[in-house]
Amino acid sequence: MKVAILGYGNIGKAAEEAIKAAPDMELAGIFHHNDCLECIDADVVLVATPTREVQKFATVLAARGICTVDSFDIHGQIWNLRSSLDAVCQANKCVSVISAGWDPGSDSMIRALLMALAPQGITYTNFGPGRSMGHTVAAKAIKGVKNALSMTIPLGTGIHRRMVYIELEEGADFKTVEAAILADDYFAHDETHVIAVESVDALNNVAHGVNLVRSGVSGETHNQRFEFNMAINNPALTGQVMVSCARAAFRMKARGQFGAKTMIELAPIDLLAGDPESLVKALV
Amino acid sequence: MKVAILGYGNIGKAAEEAIKAAPDMELAGIFHHNDCLECIDADVVLVATPTREVQKFATVLAARGICTVDSFDIHGQIWNLRSSLDAVCQANKCVSVISAGWDPGSDSMIRALLMALAPQGITYTNFGPGRSMGHTVAAKAIKGVKNALSMTIPLGTGIHRRMVYIELEEGADFKTVEAAILADDYFAHDETHVIAVESVDALNNVAHGVNLVRSGVSGETHNQRFEFNMAINNPALTGQVMVSCARAAFRMKARGQFGAKTMIELAPIDLLAGDPESLVKALV
Repeated sequence: MKVAILGYGNIGKAAEEAIKAAPDMELAGIFHHNDCLECIDADVVLVATPTREVQKFATVLAARGICTVDSFDIHGQIWNLRSSLDAVCQANKCVSVISAGWDPGSDSMIRALLMALAPQGITYTNFGPGRSMGHTVAAKAIKGVKNALSMTIPLGTGIHRRMVYIELEEGADFKTVEAAILADDYFAHDETHVIAVESVDALNNVAHGVNLVRSGVSGETHNQRFEFNMAINNPALTGQVMVSCARAAFRMKARGQFGAKTMIELAPIDLLAGDPESLVKALV
Repeated sequence: MKVAILGYGNIGKAAEEAIKAAPDMELAGIFHHNDCLECIDADVVLVATPTREVQKFATVLAARGICTVDSFDIHGQIWNLRSSLDAVCQANKCVSVISAGWDPGSDSMIRALLMALAPQGITYTNFGPGRSMGHTVAAKAIKGVKNALSMTIPLGTGIHRRMVYIELEEGADFKTVEAAILADDYFAHDETHVIAVESVDALNNVAHGVNLVRSGVSGETHNQRFEFNMAINNPALTGQVMVSCARAAFRMKARGQFGAKTMIELAPIDLLAGDPESLVKALV
């Protein structure tokens, strides 16, 4: 299958590596935001643009009958994106896999599976240690901050600490900046520590992690315990997930299962290279 | 949907509890090995018989167009069962979900997902601590053994220790029995300890567990680390998995996706009660 990449930031570059490592894929080109979308000739396009531009690009591509995969990550707007793209995909007989990263994405599949194993109970998703893009951007926007890095530290039961490393602008007062960060809506609800450093770049690291825990009830039996952990390179995993989902989009289109899908709507086997017999024998 | 149970051992009883706890299911009856299969009126039948009788019963039911779910657990024969039942399901427009337990079953889904996240690498599935049915039966068959319980203890990297607790028959010699167990093909390849006890029943406990570990490569990035752990009541989880898979069988039949499927061929959302919008909003 021919897979193209639209957007060439960290995720696009990681996706390129994953396409090249896939035995059943050919890189059909790398395109940028301003390139001619009509010129893309591919079975599947990975939309690796900033998340707020995903809907626009995916819609144009799906309208041409080209499958897309994105890693749209604004949790509250996923259903709206799915509804909108679903109509376009149904009308043009293609498949869009949306929110295909690790959270939302592979973590979502784990959460769904654990709910099937113990339908009653609580799941906690604990993120980190790792860099939060949203919080980093929020800290950078504070007056007096030259550069920032906000780390998410898991405290368990879905509660997180924010460690905010900042470089101050010349003449800025640390206490004033710290107070502004602590008052910001991004930080006001969590335990937050602000630390002035010489160089934020010296701390930068794309490592991230998850600790996902469920204790629940199977039938009438309580105390069923499940835990999923990962410690990963963030863009490398996101790029790989998108590439694995490109395979699922291609296969579902071939079977006539058109529409927009989140990862919990995909069968794991469709993410994998190889024929069903080999995969069932190796994995089941 | 109307779900019946065929076979009323530990798993059948646990499945009954899970059906009763499901908001979208009605128990359509509990049947035994010698009951009239033609008399079963259900959308899905959970075949909770001994594993070697699964194929016979599932084939008769699928030939009537009734969906089935089983927890067939002989790893080397799963593809053959799938092939055989697939033809019957295709011809009679129904769905059989096979090998739907926790291993094979939900662990298989985890293994498939982790391979999609890091296609190159090694996965180790470590079982226990928990009772191994196969090894327990093998130990019970040894001359001089009145009762036995074989526990599987995980040592990591897929290597296991066998702790075999035995009650000796009157007059039996421990050293002779121990040597026979250690020489048995079930035990000869693993570290095995044989321990004589007064009462095997006093040790009995349906707890089990899994520690599933993968370290692999996403794209070109090594050292991606994943781990799945569970500590569970074994029959309760198996019964729950079968019931969740009954829902998937029912929905796939309604969509015209006929055939026999292993769990890696199911979308997690199909295992869950509720409408897609609520599930996507809650889990993705």
